[in-house]
Amino acid sequence: MQKFIVTPWEVKGNIDYDKLIKEFGTSKINDALLERTKKHTKDLHYLLKRKIFFSHRDFDWILNEYEKGNKFFLYTGRAPSSHTHLGHLVPWMFTKWLQDKFKVDLWFQFPDEEKFLFKENLTLKDTEKYTYENMLDVIAVGFDPKRTKFLVDTKHANLMYKEAIKVAKKITFSTAKGAFGFTDETNIGSIFYTSMQAVPAFLPSVLKNKKIPCLIPHAIDQDPHFRVARDVMPKIDQYKPASIHCRFLPALTESGKMSGSEGHTIFTTDSEKEVENKIKKYAFSGGRDTLEEHRKKGGNPDIDISYQYLTFFEEDDKKLEKIYQDYKSGKLLSGELKQITIEKINKMLKEHQKKRDKARKQIDKFLKW
Amino acid sequence: MQKFIVTPWEVKGNIDYDKLIKEFGTSKINDALLERTKKHTKDLHYLLKRKIFFSHRDFDWILNEYEKGNKFFLYTGRAPSSHTHLGHLVPWMFTKWLQDKFKVDLWFQFPDEEKFLFKENLTLKDTEKYTYENMLDVIAVGFDPKRTKFLVDTKHANLMYKEAIKVAKKITFSTAKGAFGFTDETNIGSIFYTSMQAVPAFLPSVLKNKKIPCLIPHAIDQDPHFRVARDVMPKIDQYKPASIHCRFLPALTESGKMSGSEGHTIFTTDSEKEVENKIKKYAFSGGRDTLEEHRKKGGNPDIDISYQYLTFFEEDDKKLEKIYQDYKSGKLLSGELKQITIEKINKMLKEHQKKRDKARKQIDKFLKW
Repeated sequence: MQKFIVTPWEVKGNIDYDKLIKEFGTSKINDALLERTKKHTKDLHYLLKRKIFFSHRDFDWILNEYEKGNKFFLYTGRAPSSHTHLGHLVPWMFTKWLQDKFKVDLWFQFPDEEKFLFKENLTLKDTEKYTYENMLDVIAVGFDPKRTKFLVDTKHANLMYKEAIKVAKKITFSTAKGAFGFTDETNIGSIFYTSMQAVPAFLPSVLKNKKIPCLIPHAIDQDPHFRVARDVMPKIDQYKPASIHCRFLPALTESGKMSGSEGHTIFTTDSEKEVENKIKKYAFSGGRDTLEEHRKKGGNPDIDISYQYLTFFEEDDKKLEKIYQDYKSGKLLSGELKQITIEKINKMLKEHQKKRDKARKQIDKFLKW
Repeated sequence: MQKFIVTPWEVKGNIDYDKLIKEFGTSKINDALLERTKKHTKDLHYLLKRKIFFSHRDFDWILNEYEKGNKFFLYTGRAPSSHTHLGHLVPWMFTKWLQDKFKVDLWFQFPDEEKFLFKENLTLKDTEKYTYENMLDVIAVGFDPKRTKFLVDTKHANLMYKEAIKVAKKITFSTAKGAFGFTDETNIGSIFYTSMQAVPAFLPSVLKNKKIPCLIPHAIDQDPHFRVARDVMPKIDQYKPASIHCRFLPALTESGKMSGSEGHTIFTTDSEKEVENKIKKYAFSGGRDTLEEHRKKGGNPDIDISYQYLTFFEEDDKKLEKIYQDYKSGKLLSGELKQITIEKINKMLKEHQKKRDKARKQIDKFLKW
């Protein structure tokens, strides 16, 4: 059995998601929950059908409340420390779908102090630049500007700090140490930070002076923050936030998650040529060593990164199934599969980059509310 | 030898100020420094002459810079958790004198989260109320509204939080533990808090984009905060703040400092009758057991709290000296000494309360800048 690590700051190894559900104490998304969701959404997002969103906390409660007429709001975020890469888009695309289907507000946090505090060499000048760049990508995903509010920790601190200290008062260093693995050498900003990440989960309730359920779609590595927040919320007379968790888009070369701080990462700003080169050069292949062997025995889509990427980005189930079968049978070669993935991603990014350019003029709509 | 404790949260016992200077590593204010100060201020405040302001860090450097034409700014503050008491007025009166003599700006911080974080039962509603009440007292002291800016941590967090995280990144839990005696059970807001207290020491430099020397007049118990801040400042390319420290106004009944959280405390909002009753009932007397013995052997002004209070509030050196001699000789009785102190404090508070009432209309001048 391979070892794996999943923390808010490090994801490594071949992740056993079932084991993670047990370790973190979350619930698996089962077919009954999907059917129940479908009653409201009519169809199901492919990220749900394919169990890329695979785990949750209290999503059933969110539906209970929704069915009683008590609408939730969505909260997700991005800690700016690099350009946006493909992995970031996954929860955002799904969040947009939830916003569209349930017609709910989204609070999108940019905790621009987080990575500054956790990364020795990252400056506030860096995070300011990436906050702007990342915002363009978020807007490009297509969130409803009337229903979406950006929260930038250093810029909205007048609203957030007062709420954060309510949370912080209820978290001992001992608890933070247990959840995040801090030591005596951790800086006191990093220790405090989780309080700021908790704020958007109840800020709308404070502003409207009534408790509103909160649903947080996010990659599973952020769960420790919200686990701590869920313990605190009832102590400050707020609902525990619910959450729904996705797997990580794997790195091109290996397991774990794609990370902006490693090489071979596909950024949303990459050119067609860059995408092509990265996938051709680095994408781990499930194909056979020789053409002959591949034709005879077939490839292994389950470990092939190009195929894995298609499961995250190819909406068409039938098309995906055909690629799976063709690759497995040996009809589709590794080079051909890579080409399909390159084209899919480049098509998607071309569209994204167009919207990203237009987003420059839209930022104020999301920031000033 | 009696034990004593001086931390930002607790002051107890019979304080040996010379020992404190050694323990904290500050410098004693000597006559040469006083003479040098006098060159600029013409006269000396009685709190300096009487060595109630008795210790400093780099005050000589502040004068060096001032003499080179590099003006400093003043920074002091008040953590709102109760009404203002007489002890609070001491550093403020002295700070006003410095502002008047050197014609410098003052940044007055109201860290309204501090006591909320450190006191289990204090709510943000409490601290909001006391912030307002304390502001009235600060304004009543007579600071120049053109040169004085109020900083309220939760209200000015847009400015302060971004600066605080620069400080926080440079302080490990280990350092905070050493300076403040934190444990694993300390909440993460309290752990972070010192970063916010450091901010006013360099915020004016950030806003003006040039390094400006900072002088902090304060009671000696706050020194651990600024000791930590002084270590951090050069790492974020700012001057170490200088400071000048006063002794504590003793409690009526005992040694240690007057505290808003204990009984027998004289608040600035007390009526004449309340002041009279508190002093008559609680002020520890240095007089003899019987009238006869007192007339014969005299009283001990050095341990008499009524006399001690006069050293903090009676500006007239000659008057004070006469009271000292008369009490020591037995000419002045304990009841008479108490009466002098009652009258002095009531006269001062009457004046203060008038200004305090007018201050309600002036708050905006100090808050909005």
